Amino acid sequence: MFSGTNLPKMGTYNVNVVLSSIQASEGISRVEIAQQTGLTAQTVSVIVRRLIENGIVQESGSLPSAGGKPRKTLRVNPAAAYAVGIHFDPREMSIVVVDMTGRELASSQQELSPALEPEVLIDQAAQVAHKLLANLGVPSDRVLGVGAACPGPIDQSQGLVTSPPRRDRWTEVPIKRLLKHYIRFEVIVDNDANAAAIGERWSGHGRSTSNFAYLYLGTGIGGAMFLSNNIYRGVSLNAGEFGHVVVEPHGTPCYCGNRGCLEAMCSPAAITRNVHVELALGRDSSLSPLYQRGAALVDHTAICLAAAQGDEVARRVIDRVAEYIADCAVIIANCLDVELLVLGGKAVTHVAEIYRDKVTEALRSLPLARKTHTLRVAVSELSIDGAALGAASMVLHANYAPNTAHLVSVPAGA
Amino acid sequence: MFSGTNLPKMGTYNVNVVLSSIQASEGISRVEIAQQTGLTAQTVSVIVRRLIENGIVQESGSLPSAGGKPRKTLRVNPAAAYAVGIHFDPREMSIVVVDMTGRELASSQQELSPALEPEVLIDQAAQVAHKLLANLGVPSDRVLGVGAACPGPIDQSQGLVTSPPRRDRWTEVPIKRLLKHYIRFEVIVDNDANAAAIGERWSGHGRSTSNFAYLYLGTGIGGAMFLSNNIYRGVSLNAGEFGHVVVEPHGTPCYCGNRGCLEAMCSPAAITRNVHVELALGRDSSLSPLYQRGAALVDHTAICLAAAQGDEVARRVIDRVAEYIADCAVIIANCLDVELLVLGGKAVTHVAEIYRDKVTEALRSLPLARKTHTLRVAVSELSIDGAALGAASMVLHANYAPNTAHLVSVPAGA
Repeated sequence: MFSGTNLPKMGTYNVNVVLSSIQASEGISRVEIAQQTGLTAQTVSVIVRRLIENGIVQESGSLPSAGGKPRKTLRVNPAAAYAVGIHFDPREMSIVVVDMTGRELASSQQELSPALEPEVLIDQAAQVAHKLLANLGVPSDRVLGVGAACPGPIDQSQGLVTSPPRRDRWTEVPIKRLLKHYIRFEVIVDNDANAAAIGERWSGHGRSTSNFAYLYLGTGIGGAMFLSNNIYRGVSLNAGEFGHVVVEPHGTPCYCGNRGCLEAMCSPAAITRNVHVELALGRDSSLSPLYQRGAALVDHTAICLAAAQGDEVARRVIDRVAEYIADCAVIIANCLDVELLVLGGKAVTHVAEIYRDKVTEALRSLPLARKTHTLRVAVSELSIDGAALGAASMVLHANYAPNTAHLVSVPAGA
Repeated sequence: MFSGTNLPKMGTYNVNVVLSSIQASEGISRVEIAQQTGLTAQTVSVIVRRLIENGIVQESGSLPSAGGKPRKTLRVNPAAAYAVGIHFDPREMSIVVVDMTGRELASSQQELSPALEPEVLIDQAAQVAHKLLANLGVPSDRVLGVGAACPGPIDQSQGLVTSPPRRDRWTEVPIKRLLKHYIRFEVIVDNDANAAAIGERWSGHGRSTSNFAYLYLGTGIGGAMFLSNNIYRGVSLNAGEFGHVVVEPHGTPCYCGNRGCLEAMCSPAAITRNVHVELALGRDSSLSPLYQRGAALVDHTAICLAAAQGDEVARRVIDRVAEYIADCAVIIANCLDVELLVLGGKAVTHVAEIYRDKVTEALRSLPLARKTHTLRVAVSELSIDGAALGAASMVLHANYAPNTAHLVSVPAGA
């Protein structure tokens, strides 16, 4: 059922509208904010005064004005608030600290032993985060909270990682509760793809885009979507599982129970397996000497590097993967009709251009509505680990992004 | 960029919230409305008084109350407003009139000659609509408007049908302008699948569902989605083209330029073609005698009827179609994570149960998040032509449904 709205909800919403106008600009005047948002000059003035009093916004310069006195420009105060982002990946953990503008101030990466107990790892993450904050001299009361990005699916209501692929120890881990216990800040948990998309929205290609999809190529393949200015999560918070779009109906069995899923055909493990098969058959490749020293040495990174450098065997496998990704992109275009598709995640390293070119070509020639509108493709350029930066952005987003859902949140007990 | 909200937008929104509470109920008191919507008793009272004064709502009975005087119950006044729905399908035209509750009061169907000029047809539709309204005694000033449902893609900003499949004469027809000219009411144009979904939301399975997808099986195959209580249309208003999800990568070429699209594999034309091939090969079938009298006699309707009655040839083809539809349903589940998938459109007649059972089975066993939440499947039960009823519902929906987008609509000139 629908809920009504009221003045307090409206007030909070408008504050965030003003703040997001300032956030998206490189210095903006009160008059321009009023023009952009449709709020009255008086409302903007009252809100800005409060934001300045609270130290969230600063007057940072002035713009020439036609006739009158110069207009003061406003910027977000970077030191107004900080957030921590933690990305738990099956193989490594990344931790970043960002300021109020979403800029990365410090980061730490470490490889993980699969034998590590989740609770031990979470404790360790909390220690690293506190050390990063201490080194930066960030006072605890300026830390808005911690975002944690994990492989999905996630039960957000309980902060549980429910059944992550390839990581049995993490089944049913109450990550939100544990992390909150060890780190002593508020915690938001989301899957890695949603985190990366929020990061992209906050400080990447998605900044001025209200509808975009994110195809997240990590150890597995996930996805996320910003629809009408908000992450769309679905009823059980598991929307955007583009990795389980079937691209080859009779293809490789997938752990999900289906066959030929994008992830089963295109994950780093699948790519590595396919190249190993070629090399075992004795195909001529720049990777052959490495393979003869030990198959494990020809890993996903080595393969992507070889493909980028023109090795035929690696390139053929990567080209096929690019075609499957393009098939999925066309399905995303036909179903979601978004403005932008962002390709990101660690598995695009070295091969991003190959993927981008093939996807671009498919999106120009195959979606039904291509004549009305062509979906744009971009490769994420965020940091070394977009999901960690995104996890930190989740905290800023939850606190400061205008969210129409909050205007009409369901009353308690309804 | 985000827009702020203000008191007038908030007021309109809350009126629609109250109205939709009344609409969804079978008689509801002011106290219950306040509980459901989170609005104060005073706000509800003021809004209800205005709705009664305007004749939109009626006091219709009373509920026993604990201790005090009985509570008056409220209902929508069916005669408060009327809407016309017109569905232009490549082969036929359906016109319905509904009252304020979305109930169908009168309808008319007619087969269309492909030779008919669009403008002649639109003129004819306007005449039929006015005749239906006159027969019902509906005064013109009570007609809120006319909804027109057409095969997509549609350029909504200009009210153009841009390039409908299999109907060259309709390319670039300014349907909104023409229909408005002939019918002399406000006109809303949308594609058939969106119309059917809005109808389902207004008076079908979608009534209490905030996230659902609609797979529309008509002459072609389309789709629509209600996400977070609103139709999601995408940036170029062409979201939900589930008919162009590829289910057989090397399958039949589709008019869209791709191969193996759901529509190419499963449209009535594809089904008929596949059955004709079997019959031409002399397979034993209850349809053989009819086929020998003339291949054209074995049409989609005859095939679906034969499949429902157990004919092996027809059933085999329909079963394969059901599997493709199920493949597409699994993709919808993995990408959109909605509560409900509605199967509708004329092409489900006679075979709805076969499709529903196969889709249900797939959705129980294949989507990644099936353990967290199983997507429910339902077959539309709306009227003889769900898209026509839906087209009329579009008018009610546009006027009365609470729409958070309107709370924050972009100011003119921004």
